[in-house]
Amino acid sequence: MNTKKMMTQEKVKPFLLQARYGIEKESQRVTLDGDLVQTDHPTSVGNRSFHPYIQTDFSETQLELITPVTESVDEVLAYLEAIHDVAQRSMPKDEMMWPFSMPPALPENEGDIQIAKLERHADVLYRRYLAREYGKRKQMVSGIHFNFEYGLDLIRQLHLACEEEVSMEVFKTRLYMKIARNFLRYRWLLTYLFGASPLSEARYFDDEDRPKEPVRSIRTSHYGYVNKPDVQVSYETLSRYSEDLAENVALGRLSEEKEFYAPIRMRGGKKVADLFHTGIRYVELRNIDLNPFDRVGIDAAEIEFIHLFMLYLLWTDEKLPADEWVAEGNRISDVVSLENPAKTTAYLTEGQAIFAEMLQMVDELEIEGAELLKKYQAWLDYPEETLAARILALDEANGQAAVATELGRKFYEQAWAYPYQLAGFQEMELSTQNLLFDAIQKGIETEVLDRQDQFVKLQHDEHQEFVKNGNMTSKDTYIAPLLMANKTVTKIVLSRAGFRVPDGETFGSMDDAKKAYPRFAQKAFVIKPKSTNYGLGITIFKGETSITDFNAGLALAFAEDDEIIIEEFLPGTEYRFFVIDHQVKAVLLRIPANVIGDGERSIEELVAEKNDNPLRGTNHRSPLEKIQLGDLEQLMLKEQGLRIDSIPEKGQQVFLRENSNVSTGGDSIDVTDDIHESYKQLAVDAVEVLGASISGIDLIIPDKDKPYETHEDYGIIEANFNPMMHMHIYPYAGKSRRLTLDVLRFLYPEMTI
Amino acid sequence: MNTKKMMTQEKVKPFLLQARYGIEKESQRVTLDGDLVQTDHPTSVGNRSFHPYIQTDFSETQLELITPVTESVDEVLAYLEAIHDVAQRSMPKDEMMWPFSMPPALPENEGDIQIAKLERHADVLYRRYLAREYGKRKQMVSGIHFNFEYGLDLIRQLHLACEEEVSMEVFKTRLYMKIARNFLRYRWLLTYLFGASPLSEARYFDDEDRPKEPVRSIRTSHYGYVNKPDVQVSYETLSRYSEDLAENVALGRLSEEKEFYAPIRMRGGKKVADLFHTGIRYVELRNIDLNPFDRVGIDAAEIEFIHLFMLYLLWTDEKLPADEWVAEGNRISDVVSLENPAKTTAYLTEGQAIFAEMLQMVDELEIEGAELLKKYQAWLDYPEETLAARILALDEANGQAAVATELGRKFYEQAWAYPYQLAGFQEMELSTQNLLFDAIQKGIETEVLDRQDQFVKLQHDEHQEFVKNGNMTSKDTYIAPLLMANKTVTKIVLSRAGFRVPDGETFGSMDDAKKAYPRFAQKAFVIKPKSTNYGLGITIFKGETSITDFNAGLALAFAEDDEIIIEEFLPGTEYRFFVIDHQVKAVLLRIPANVIGDGERSIEELVAEKNDNPLRGTNHRSPLEKIQLGDLEQLMLKEQGLRIDSIPEKGQQVFLRENSNVSTGGDSIDVTDDIHESYKQLAVDAVEVLGASISGIDLIIPDKDKPYETHEDYGIIEANFNPMMHMHIYPYAGKSRRLTLDVLRFLYPEMTI
Repeated sequence: MNTKKMMTQEKVKPFLLQARYGIEKESQRVTLDGDLVQTDHPTSVGNRSFHPYIQTDFSETQLELITPVTESVDEVLAYLEAIHDVAQRSMPKDEMMWPFSMPPALPENEGDIQIAKLERHADVLYRRYLAREYGKRKQMVSGIHFNFEYGLDLIRQLHLACEEEVSMEVFKTRLYMKIARNFLRYRWLLTYLFGASPLSEARYFDDEDRPKEPVRSIRTSHYGYVNKPDVQVSYETLSRYSEDLAENVALGRLSEEKEFYAPIRMRGGKKVADLFHTGIRYVELRNIDLNPFDRVGIDAAEIEFIHLFMLYLLWTDEKLPADEWVAEGNRISDVVSLENPAKTTAYLTEGQAIFAEMLQMVDELEIEGAELLKKYQAWLDYPEETLAARILALDEANGQAAVATELGRKFYEQAWAYPYQLAGFQEMELSTQNLLFDAIQKGIETEVLDRQDQFVKLQHDEHQEFVKNGNMTSKDTYIAPLLMANKTVTKIVLSRAGFRVPDGETFGSMDDAKKAYPRFAQKAFVIKPKSTNYGLGITIFKGETSITDFNAGLALAFAEDDEIIIEEFLPGTEYRFFVIDHQVKAVLLRIPANVIGDGERSIEELVAEKNDNPLRGTNHRSPLEKIQLGDLEQLMLKEQGLRIDSIPEKGQQVFLRENSNVSTGGDSIDVTDDIHESYKQLAVDAVEVLGASISGIDLIIPDKDKPYETHEDYGIIEANFNPMMHMHIYPYAGKSRRLTLDVLRFLYPEMTI
Repeated sequence: MNTKKMMTQEKVKPFLLQARYGIEKESQRVTLDGDLVQTDHPTSVGNRSFHPYIQTDFSETQLELITPVTESVDEVLAYLEAIHDVAQRSMPKDEMMWPFSMPPALPENEGDIQIAKLERHADVLYRRYLAREYGKRKQMVSGIHFNFEYGLDLIRQLHLACEEEVSMEVFKTRLYMKIARNFLRYRWLLTYLFGASPLSEARYFDDEDRPKEPVRSIRTSHYGYVNKPDVQVSYETLSRYSEDLAENVALGRLSEEKEFYAPIRMRGGKKVADLFHTGIRYVELRNIDLNPFDRVGIDAAEIEFIHLFMLYLLWTDEKLPADEWVAEGNRISDVVSLENPAKTTAYLTEGQAIFAEMLQMVDELEIEGAELLKKYQAWLDYPEETLAARILALDEANGQAAVATELGRKFYEQAWAYPYQLAGFQEMELSTQNLLFDAIQKGIETEVLDRQDQFVKLQHDEHQEFVKNGNMTSKDTYIAPLLMANKTVTKIVLSRAGFRVPDGETFGSMDDAKKAYPRFAQKAFVIKPKSTNYGLGITIFKGETSITDFNAGLALAFAEDDEIIIEEFLPGTEYRFFVIDHQVKAVLLRIPANVIGDGERSIEELVAEKNDNPLRGTNHRSPLEKIQLGDLEQLMLKEQGLRIDSIPEKGQQVFLRENSNVSTGGDSIDVTDDIHESYKQLAVDAVEVLGASISGIDLIIPDKDKPYETHEDYGIIEANFNPMMHMHIYPYAGKSRRLTLDVLRFLYPEMTI
């Protein structure tokens, strides 16, 4: 097959960069001082018997983070970042991930290395076998397994461009076998650039057969975790490869296929034999060391380079018969792995030739990547730029363990800095970030179908659910949220069912509304736009209202909506009840933006200090909003005879807003355990009358400690159909209520969450 | 009780005009020539055993239309108009309603008057009894029963203002007993103004005891349908009233309480005895003749006058002991009923005194109505303005039967002019109007909770449903419509489930979208905004697209939305499948705005003719939209070498639009019976995969007659979560599919609809 000719065809070109990626990343769990932990795999993580994202590899301390298959570099890194965040934040607060491929100092007694406590006995038995055959220490090394698949359209176009008449399956298999051979031949270049295991820590090697000097990559050298030398497999054809593997198993050199630790694996079926039916679907690259300078062990440039490298492997012709070609590659790989990282490689000339060919390739194929290639090309002449050399330079000053601990701490702190966010998905709404966090943690397969639309697919076994905005689900009907969205209709329905709602009316014209003056003038009441989510256009009147003020309030409200509501004002405190599946899971008290004086600092300084809380941000990117000092706040101060440079007395609470919305700097205080149960029952009953499953219903309660008895004890203000969850999860004060977990429990009652 | 003093208190005043109304209206069904029909009650109307809106009174030909209880004049008339539309359009096309209280000529043989064929045997027995006691002919008279209740807040305020210490129930009862006595005393004024049964038709009277001259109201006179003279009842107190009634029944003068045909009835319980517990809740005025000049038999001014009259009855003091007061009223009423309509009444002076007092009342109470009062006050001096006089004036020229037939025909034509609309609710969306029509027809209680929001409550027995926009219901989940609203997500989900959707991608930036050029340049494809309901921002490319055209298409789409879709264009015809509850209930072909030439008229003239179709309107107030001749249409003509004054050849179809949307003048053609079943199954399956119950799913099908076999045979373009229904109900061509009935069947499977 003339792959070069196929690739240069015009119909193929638009698809050349199409690919799918998946990453598996191992890490040892260590203490914040860099010592291997003694603890079990974190219990908050869903069961390893099905968990798609967070597993253990050989030992109980060795996390294996697995991304789903994705179609872009951004996406695979987003998932890896996210899973990393989840794994780190699911571990005890005094544990972190060791950022290096080579493990930290290992226990003196090899028996203290705990084999992963898996449920399936066969899995445990296999690990015991490995421990016997290779020793437990060798198994403690970590790395990246990089799964790479050429895009389906690309394969299809290449197949169409192929002059030989072969089936798609045969075609794919031939393609990937060529990739495998070329990969084995040229993989040394990856080791040169990205090899990152120059040194070992105490007790990794249990004898004197070890590198005497720092190297580029212990892990990819013959000192790493490799099969015994008698295990030899040909890559000439898939048949020979398969036969050789089978023979090795039959002769007892391997316990089973998966014990064959090749730097590249052909994937597509459960067993190699399956590949004959399906064709090879993708390859797994296994020789990538953890990049300790990136918290997830690999960065975008590295992945993009590997992608171009994979295209190059398709592009470039093999220059020797298969077995010779592979054998030469293996030999060179070992040499390069064991070179001094700071020195120029012995294969500089070949390296330069590869880069020259790659640059020619991207030029001929009109694909992007020349800049990236030139960057890594320079590393050939400047070996000090390679990962191994950079690690070594740091190690020489501080020792490898100290460097690893320091880097690990840095990544640990990054993961904990904004615990309400999920790396990789930070531009999504907080509630969706929290839901994704929980789903990943519990092992529910997640897929973001549309980021901007906050549209998520969840799957566990065959059970699929869609969620939008964190809590819009199949558990609610179409009509219930529409009902709740309409305040007038909500009030009619609640009132007919016997609940107390404030007396009031909706008006569609200024003239009609003005006529209502006599009806409300003597009462406490509020004028508000019919539809509003924030406090805009709302005026509260406390009774004995003048016609002028009344009309001014109408004007403010009509500025926000074509219809306005004039509503009786109920005295008492407003609480938000979060109801899900007939249960109140959280009750929140919201207090208008305020500061408490210390007798020394000005209001402006107190606000600045309060805004320093990492929970406070802007534009709903954080659970709380920063308090503003705009016109409205200053007016509010003025009404109290204060200015922003006034110094409140010690303990004096100064309010900067009338309205209590969190979105205008209000404080959120969880009071779930402090509210009398009878009000919770009321909230549940009211939500049921509205036909809703998930709702944030606002009750006015004069005295939360007094059990509900009569209509005077409460009033229902409104019910919200997509209630904010993050303000309950990260309240300003009080207990966190992990409502996103409740959503998952509601959606997946069959799971233990 | 000093009601006048109570009414003038400041706290009472704002509530004085608060009231609730309900109307029952009887009508004889007649042919378009004005002959009493021989047919049964219409079968399309829901069963009379529960029907809340459309019943029969005494005879099978006598419709009784019943509004719900409403809180405004507008609302009660809206319902009466609507029920009227439904009743008329449920009758055979050759029947209409007789607009007069006095029936048309009756059969020679009284036996030919068919007693209503009711299900409950007791109801039939009672009617047989009435036929024996009073004769069938007398029962054939029709009228308005007007139910009136003072507002609850008004009653509460009056009660608070009352100086005597009485319970609310006692208070209400006393109030309404006063009303009843004053009503009986002064009701002659209503007869004077609104009496409208001056003459009888053949065989209404079966003997010579009848008015010899035209009168104001046969119906309210002693010649009308009244009890025998020995039935006498006191209105002094509720107790005496109740005792007297009981005595009349005991003595066999009445078969049961309801046989007592008083001009006013005290209501609130099933039986009069219940009123002692509940208090009288409202009164039923029974002496209102049908106003034949209004198609529903009563107009707003008349209701508003009655309302003021009811306030006056509360306001004015009684001037004689109860029984004398009522007896005097009854006497005067009969006199006025039998006066010549064109002459001044004998009670002119009392009438003037009443009006003077009423005007003083509205002045003192600061309520509106003076203008209205003055209008009717003038009728005292100008008796020719009264209804009876006006009827008589017409009758003198043409005879009463001819006048009645002519008026009936006019109202008949009004009801049929825009059959896709529902009178009283015309400003709502057509789909909601159709749904309301069907619900009223089938006897499902309807309540519009919010007109502007198209939010409707339905109820049958205990089963309550909410519907918004005609088909947003509890039968769909919250998430399914959100999924369908997102075209990208829809495509992902359908494609994963194995359905064919056009290849394509969503782009969030112009730069990203521009990069897609090579991928689409050789294909047929479409560029469109991600969210759009009409054809805005869509460009179709047929293949071999230049980069300039491509970029221009992107700019158009990005002008409509932040995200755009570039999508493979599938050849074939697009059909809209309306799926509900796993069944395809309609398939529609939409053809872009077009005219067909006749070789004589210009395009402009042909468009004007096509636009004359009453199905075509503007702004979605009609099932089809008028074809415009704007810039887009003229450009389209220009591209075909045509202008609006070009004269197409006979049979030549000229298109004025690329897009086929009905909203831009397209034709809708029902093809439900012409589409191969296999495509319907595909549509049902796809909607199921989307998790939806109601959806309008658009399929591209190259050949609708060829059964579906492979992916080449179709493609799914999109699924709509609130699909238009009226275009299926009123297609331009083909069979009507009453989808709103399907919605009701889906919501109420327990009913036979």
